[in-house]
Amino acid sequence: MTSPIALDLTTDVADLTAALIDINSVSGNETVLADAVENALRTLPHLDVVRDGDAIVARTQLGRKERVILAGHLDTVPLPTAAGSRGTVPSAWDGTVLYGRGATDMKGGVAVQLALAAELTAPGRDVTYVFYDHEEVEASLSGLGRLARNHPQLLQGDFAILLEPTDGTVEGGCNGTARFEVGTVGQAAHSARAWMGINAIHAAAEILVRLRDHEPATVTVDGLEYRESLNAVKINGGTAGNVIPDGTTVEINYRFAPDKSPEDAELYVRNLLDGFTVVRTDAAAGARPGLNHPAAADFVAAVGAEPKPKYGWTDVARFSELGIPAVNFGPGDALLAHTDNEHVPAEAIRDCLAALRRWLAD
Amino acid sequence: MTSPIALDLTTDVADLTAALIDINSVSGNETVLADAVENALRTLPHLDVVRDGDAIVARTQLGRKERVILAGHLDTVPLPTAAGSRGTVPSAWDGTVLYGRGATDMKGGVAVQLALAAELTAPGRDVTYVFYDHEEVEASLSGLGRLARNHPQLLQGDFAILLEPTDGTVEGGCNGTARFEVGTVGQAAHSARAWMGINAIHAAAEILVRLRDHEPATVTVDGLEYRESLNAVKINGGTAGNVIPDGTTVEINYRFAPDKSPEDAELYVRNLLDGFTVVRTDAAAGARPGLNHPAAADFVAAVGAEPKPKYGWTDVARFSELGIPAVNFGPGDALLAHTDNEHVPAEAIRDCLAALRRWLAD
Repeated sequence: MTSPIALDLTTDVADLTAALIDINSVSGNETVLADAVENALRTLPHLDVVRDGDAIVARTQLGRKERVILAGHLDTVPLPTAAGSRGTVPSAWDGTVLYGRGATDMKGGVAVQLALAAELTAPGRDVTYVFYDHEEVEASLSGLGRLARNHPQLLQGDFAILLEPTDGTVEGGCNGTARFEVGTVGQAAHSARAWMGINAIHAAAEILVRLRDHEPATVTVDGLEYRESLNAVKINGGTAGNVIPDGTTVEINYRFAPDKSPEDAELYVRNLLDGFTVVRTDAAAGARPGLNHPAAADFVAAVGAEPKPKYGWTDVARFSELGIPAVNFGPGDALLAHTDNEHVPAEAIRDCLAALRRWLAD
Repeated sequence: MTSPIALDLTTDVADLTAALIDINSVSGNETVLADAVENALRTLPHLDVVRDGDAIVARTQLGRKERVILAGHLDTVPLPTAAGSRGTVPSAWDGTVLYGRGATDMKGGVAVQLALAAELTAPGRDVTYVFYDHEEVEASLSGLGRLARNHPQLLQGDFAILLEPTDGTVEGGCNGTARFEVGTVGQAAHSARAWMGINAIHAAAEILVRLRDHEPATVTVDGLEYRESLNAVKINGGTAGNVIPDGTTVEINYRFAPDKSPEDAELYVRNLLDGFTVVRTDAAAGARPGLNHPAAADFVAAVGAEPKPKYGWTDVARFSELGIPAVNFGPGDALLAHTDNEHVPAEAIRDCLAALRRWLAD
């Protein structure tokens, strides 16, 4: 084993971000970066450090009344292949804008975590810093999921912040998602003698009418408004141009507010499509933003911007499963994530660090 | 060129059927049978014989007021391949039932044509006997279609009978068929933010409702009741489980009574689906049974059985296109056509011959 790359956690946080980008850590190849992070954290006497695979957990143990979690993933999506792409490795400065793979998603956030870990020797709340692998690949590989299975006690806390890019706003919780297949069954016949059969596509008319006429709810959860949606996403029926179709399948996706469990969501869809055979094929719970928790309210006040709901599913849902309210708050524009020219302004990283320092130093 | 196989047209018509079956004439290989048929017909001085490819037209020229056409195809579908199949070549008797490829479809009918051609030297109506190739393959190869293009004058007549198997009943005319594609267009969006898109599957609800609620007509044409049908036969929409679908296509098949042209049928569907984009992809006109024509009425009286409408599309539609009313009337059960154990009772062939003789000898 070669020596880990040395990281200076006390340098300017934007420069630290550049140093993190320069260590290629495409999913599955996080070890070199994880070694560097572990090595840097182990030099800090105020932190307890635990490593699991390529995930690292570092905790203050000050006996504070509350504990908050700051979490971020070490991996990135693959490097861009298009000629001239600037969101690659190594990083490059264009004025005060930093280009490179992971600039927004999410080495800026990881740099903020590391800077806080080094600087805050005695924060007002105990802090758990979580760095994990395999976020950008299938959920079963998730380093955060593995930590929750192997070391649930390391993830205990009152409130969690994922430093995913949110452009400096607080995005709370997330909607859940569930998929269903709704089928109709008919009876095949030659279409010249249609009255000998039963048309399964015609029978699906009622399914589409109910979905079309359904008015999706907007649900307020912990002060944030979650807009739901319920849609047919695929339909397929029929076998040949001269055969009365004997089957149709409609695939439905329900994005439900975090006041509902997947079971609640399933019941809702079953009621809406009463009389049809509904099969749930997939589901992931949402996450409540938990902004009514004192630590969260205090955090939102410290940031000073109006929090927004998150619609897509993110790792905050994993914290929610553990009973920990969680939000996203990090530097950079999420729309640049995974793009060929991923970049982040230095100022956005510094502002994020400043906001978190303000809150945690209390 | 070898000498044609000799056919005895004056033998029992069921034995003549067996002799025809024994000459393999799978579509594309009709020449040997066509040679035998031509050779036999040319020995009959009361007939004018014309050959075109593997089609033969033989006509009486008695100057009668009316001319009727008796038509049948010489080809068969391929021989059965399953072990133990009895509907093959050569033919075989099982008591009074004749097994072999073409037993029902339609060498029994062709034998009746040949027997009548030999026997009726002075029928009450002039008769045109038409034997043709390539009926069991794609329509563009049809020998009857080729005759209509090359020798339209040979197909002139007041009434036509196709000796396709109808089990001794008269099946008149046929429904037309047309296919349409009806589409809806939406706007794709991530299903977590469904309100940014327009759901094309939901938009298709109205199409399915109109088709489901449509009551197909039963139309009386020349005394026969044609039951129509109008059905969605296929539906397809959506691209992925997390994308609001931006397109749906519904394929529709309309089987319309022979009082309508394909253009009438198209207008009907366009009116029903007013507001949607309808594209006609395929159409074939139906055929009026023409049973109100005196020759046809006389024929039905001679047969003595209640005529029925034909629902599937058959070559009577080609005669209809030429302005000639046409019916199907032949020996054997159409449901046995193309099966591995195709067969026909000798009596059915003899009964068919007797009925046509009764009518034509007048």
